[in-house]
Amino acid sequence: MGFEDNIRRVIPYVPGEQPQSRGTIKLNTNENPYPPSPRVKKVLEEFDADALRLYPDPAALRLVKAIADRYGLKEEEVFVGVGSDDVLAMCFLTFFNSGKPLLFPDITYSFYDVWAALFRIPYLALPLDDEFRIVPGDFRRENGGIIFPNPNAPTGVLLPLDAVREIVRNNQESIVIIDEAYIDFGGESALPLIHEYENVVVVQTFSKSRSGAGLRIGYAMSNAHLIRALNDVKYSFNSYTMNSPTIAAGVECVLDEEHFRASVERIKATRERAAAVFGQLGFHVLPSAANFLFVSHPSVSGKELFDYLKSRNIYVRWWDKARIRNYLRITIGTEEQMDALFGALKEYLWNQ
Amino acid sequence: MGFEDNIRRVIPYVPGEQPQSRGTIKLNTNENPYPPSPRVKKVLEEFDADALRLYPDPAALRLVKAIADRYGLKEEEVFVGVGSDDVLAMCFLTFFNSGKPLLFPDITYSFYDVWAALFRIPYLALPLDDEFRIVPGDFRRENGGIIFPNPNAPTGVLLPLDAVREIVRNNQESIVIIDEAYIDFGGESALPLIHEYENVVVVQTFSKSRSGAGLRIGYAMSNAHLIRALNDVKYSFNSYTMNSPTIAAGVECVLDEEHFRASVERIKATRERAAAVFGQLGFHVLPSAANFLFVSHPSVSGKELFDYLKSRNIYVRWWDKARIRNYLRITIGTEEQMDALFGALKEYLWNQ
Repeated sequence: MGFEDNIRRVIPYVPGEQPQSRGTIKLNTNENPYPPSPRVKKVLEEFDADALRLYPDPAALRLVKAIADRYGLKEEEVFVGVGSDDVLAMCFLTFFNSGKPLLFPDITYSFYDVWAALFRIPYLALPLDDEFRIVPGDFRRENGGIIFPNPNAPTGVLLPLDAVREIVRNNQESIVIIDEAYIDFGGESALPLIHEYENVVVVQTFSKSRSGAGLRIGYAMSNAHLIRALNDVKYSFNSYTMNSPTIAAGVECVLDEEHFRASVERIKATRERAAAVFGQLGFHVLPSAANFLFVSHPSVSGKELFDYLKSRNIYVRWWDKARIRNYLRITIGTEEQMDALFGALKEYLWNQ
Repeated sequence: MGFEDNIRRVIPYVPGEQPQSRGTIKLNTNENPYPPSPRVKKVLEEFDADALRLYPDPAALRLVKAIADRYGLKEEEVFVGVGSDDVLAMCFLTFFNSGKPLLFPDITYSFYDVWAALFRIPYLALPLDDEFRIVPGDFRRENGGIIFPNPNAPTGVLLPLDAVREIVRNNQESIVIIDEAYIDFGGESALPLIHEYENVVVVQTFSKSRSGAGLRIGYAMSNAHLIRALNDVKYSFNSYTMNSPTIAAGVECVLDEEHFRASVERIKATRERAAAVFGQLGFHVLPSAANFLFVSHPSVSGKELFDYLKSRNIYVRWWDKARIRNYLRITIGTEEQMDALFGALKEYLWNQ
């Protein structure tokens, strides 16, 4: 059929498994082990369902304003989307339209090369150093844009703000996107850079530190000019992306700062304890500023551990990919979940 | 700045106004005047907000299955998205990748040329005939795809199924998308064609007949092969588009068939009455199979009526566009809303 030739061929991103069975210990998609603010529950209970007959506010202004207020920004400096993946997809479509390569690390969020392929954007993956650190100097080359997560995924390794600033300063002819999905777990945000430079976009999400993966809310923060460009493309794609219950729930999520902070602190404390236990078990543990740890064991392969844990109904993430084939990415769960994980690991390693 | 040259320049779609003030009679965006099923309210009230910490099912399988069951399809024949705009945007990105022009009517949903521009798809707008009807024979020309709403928007004019079939039969080398946002209000769906031909995609929405504009749910129905192509592109854009409350609410929406039918019947009855009153007031009224009427008056311009009604806090839709500049698109509201509209119109016309 002629139409076959006109279908866009892609190799889609593969998200982590979402096993629906109870009893699973799910440490594979970096979800928050603690629930969102009780204010979210309340607002859904009291939601005026009859009003669903009406379109939502296409600008989702209540949510935009709540986020802007939280970060000390103006409303026109915030863009919201259906999770940070939607926001990042819009950024790729909006900003990366040169013939020059987009730059990102070789070990990084595995959606970047998928978006580049989808939108036919050339790209170049720059190798992290031997300790999985981004090398700022490598970004001094001709490019059509730059994107990297900070902390990086799936490593958890943080790039200090000064190094981020160096990359931005050296690339003022390109848009630089800093994907801060995990920044609340211990990193210093690049948010101040959006007012220091004209080419910076900072993207964050409700999916991790705000316990809202099921809500699908992400946001970009930048100067009004770049946010307007994003909104123009968004309004050329889908006017109404954020539905009414999501806007209402998202606002409550942002407003409960205390809940947010408490949940982040618990996860950070568990992470530190977990990193120590992994060390005691002989694992190599990368320094993490995120809600996960990236670990490898000198005598058992990543795949073997992954399969074993799955057989124990413990889901973690493993990639069959050069450089990281021996690593597992393990989300920080509750203390109880981590105890169960370590129990299973000890059983396995001590019976080798 | 160098990056300015790489920003995608677009002229975005402009959605109808969403005045937030109470007391407005809102007949401008084809929303349903009646609330969604009470089951939607119940499912939101009882929603397990703690589970929002988890990602939703990326395939939204419960919702896909509910829609598939409703239409006697298999799950792999249904694709869901964030309103039919999201579904249509995905269709443009997935299917229209030839260098040949996409065909659609000159008077039609004004998002089509926006998507074509966004994705740099060449297009050709084929004139409707003098009575604003699609001319199937005009679609016999080289093309890279075809899309039209049925009933057409903003006219409300229905193309009989035989004529739709003729267009499909004559274009088996192209994907033909039938955008059935309004089909439940009186048209015969092209759904059977998805099994008669390999090149047909039927798109529908929860925003109109199912009173769910605020939920943002649209869906495409086609053969498993084309649905898979859509899903591949979707998974290359955003894995998790449908959030958890939306999946739950959407399922209840579909299951309440009785509520759906009652609401559609009420609107159709009001439409027939309203068409008669417009006729009595001297308006030219196009035959409508949708939840709106497209009307013009021989002695008062569309813009004048639009501005007058707005001054009376009654919002309708008007386009400053060739061929339809003298028309208003008026959503069918409740009986009371239509009475208020006609009261205002009589006052104006009788005082000329």
